[in-house]
Amino acid sequence: MAVYTEVTDEALRAFLDGYALGGLIAFRGIAEGVENSNYALKTDAGDFILTLYERRVDPGELPYFLGLMDHMAARGLSCPVPVKGRDGAALRELAGRPAAICTFLPGVWPRRVRPEHCGPLGAALAAMHDAAADFPMVRRNGLGPEDWAPLLDRCRGGAEPVAGLVAELDAALAPILRDWPDGLPRGQIHADLFPDNVFFMAGAGGAPQVSGLIDFYFACTDLLAYDIAVCLNAWCFEPDLAFNVTKARALLRGYRARRPLTADELAALPVLCRGAAIRFALTRLFDWANTPAGALVTRKDPMEYVRRLRFHQAASGPEAYGI
Amino acid sequence: MAVYTEVTDEALRAFLDGYALGGLIAFRGIAEGVENSNYALKTDAGDFILTLYERRVDPGELPYFLGLMDHMAARGLSCPVPVKGRDGAALRELAGRPAAICTFLPGVWPRRVRPEHCGPLGAALAAMHDAAADFPMVRRNGLGPEDWAPLLDRCRGGAEPVAGLVAELDAALAPILRDWPDGLPRGQIHADLFPDNVFFMAGAGGAPQVSGLIDFYFACTDLLAYDIAVCLNAWCFEPDLAFNVTKARALLRGYRARRPLTADELAALPVLCRGAAIRFALTRLFDWANTPAGALVTRKDPMEYVRRLRFHQAASGPEAYGI
Repeated sequence: MAVYTEVTDEALRAFLDGYALGGLIAFRGIAEGVENSNYALKTDAGDFILTLYERRVDPGELPYFLGLMDHMAARGLSCPVPVKGRDGAALRELAGRPAAICTFLPGVWPRRVRPEHCGPLGAALAAMHDAAADFPMVRRNGLGPEDWAPLLDRCRGGAEPVAGLVAELDAALAPILRDWPDGLPRGQIHADLFPDNVFFMAGAGGAPQVSGLIDFYFACTDLLAYDIAVCLNAWCFEPDLAFNVTKARALLRGYRARRPLTADELAALPVLCRGAAIRFALTRLFDWANTPAGALVTRKDPMEYVRRLRFHQAASGPEAYGI
Repeated sequence: MAVYTEVTDEALRAFLDGYALGGLIAFRGIAEGVENSNYALKTDAGDFILTLYERRVDPGELPYFLGLMDHMAARGLSCPVPVKGRDGAALRELAGRPAAICTFLPGVWPRRVRPEHCGPLGAALAAMHDAAADFPMVRRNGLGPEDWAPLLDRCRGGAEPVAGLVAELDAALAPILRDWPDGLPRGQIHADLFPDNVFFMAGAGGAPQVSGLIDFYFACTDLLAYDIAVCLNAWCFEPDLAFNVTKARALLRGYRARRPLTADELAALPVLCRGAAIRFALTRLFDWANTPAGALVTRKDPMEYVRRLRFHQAASGPEAYGI
């Protein structure tokens, strides 16, 4: 669930007075998203999403996130657009939290990924990289390669099964950091483009088309091809964790049709995929190791990403991904 | 969170083919509701709520719930209306669950109840009782007076603080059952009309007006005045559990303007309120006593209703509620 902060109707009405969106029609908590409180908001002007930024988000980074969405939307990317208040500001405050209203995107995220989703996904990711290419702000990736060893250190000292996973990730991490590529094209990346962040609608003949990308709150300035590696991890493994090379091939073909990959980017795919797998394994392991037993949160299983990591470790080159 | 069953987009599209609602535009999980999976659904025909009925709901009771909403809406009550498929059936199946689409109601539920909400609430409750008066089906209240002693028995044998609460509820229950009224007017009641089940919109001058009632999945055939007792418990205590007689007076006045209460109903208010308080204390205590430590659910505090019960035990007559 993603409603951490409740908003009184008086506070909501006063907040909406700062916008030219007409009267309030409806306001419902949304079950999706994990970092922030999200509400579906309907006013006389239409449908919107109201987000309250919770404590895990650094308010100093919000101008980057909101500015990036604004910038990409102006260049034609379908993503939430921050709505400016009467005073021109999109970043405001509600219930003691930073808050923003963004436009509502039509579409449905795929609960079960099919190969037909992966080509449009790749094309949409390349379109995002293009649309953000001249965005001038920079945000360091807070979960990039330099952060992985410190994160792993904070998982140490636990009992099994955490201890065994720490040992496996220790062994995996050193060669990843040693082989991490230098000099690949950089830019603004999404860094968390899982299926629940990509909306599709049926196009001609029922084929899925991407209707928009959402949730840019992990976006940062990093290697563009790392975003592809995140998607290969998040979209191309079956529920039994078998790798589906048909999905990977479609994803890469869709991406490359829009933005060609350099030879260095292609060669780096296996290590980038290992890095992306270890990044999600580590945050999940950290949550396992550091969540008190009995806490009221759902912990995701780090093994799902350890098993992806093992697949990538066995990949001898980009051909493992259908190239 | 209230999304227990995920629905693939293929299954959703096939399901929607059974309706004349046009194409799918959006589909998002809703954070509200606890018994079922609820989704906000937008199609070419507008906004709807799609509900998947989870295991706690007896499928045999769904015709009562859906029929009641249909019946009351036909008599002018603003409540969700089950949408019939092309074959005339409103109750269908999706993802292996019974499922129904209902119309979307505008409005916002009050996160903080003010006295101005309580008059319209009372009037809306009486309007519901009126609209349902000639609904022919009967559903036994599964959490009525005969169910309280067995429920309490299932909380026994625990350690403190559960054991202490069991003793207090044991002592409270006997006189409630002894004094439970016979012969009061009966009908269809909501039985769970908490603030998150009542939507408001601003009327003339900004005064809150009820725009609709939702979530009839505890509705049953029982004493009409018991529904008032549930509302007195759910709406008229402050966060510090002080009773706010101004709210109670407004609630009762709003109700009585639409449906007069008999002298017997007025006289029974204290015991009905004790009963409603023990009903919510008991289900919360049961969840406390029977949820394994570490389970991933939020347990609500039974003490909040034990303290309400103590207030009602001290009430000498209906004048305690502002009559």
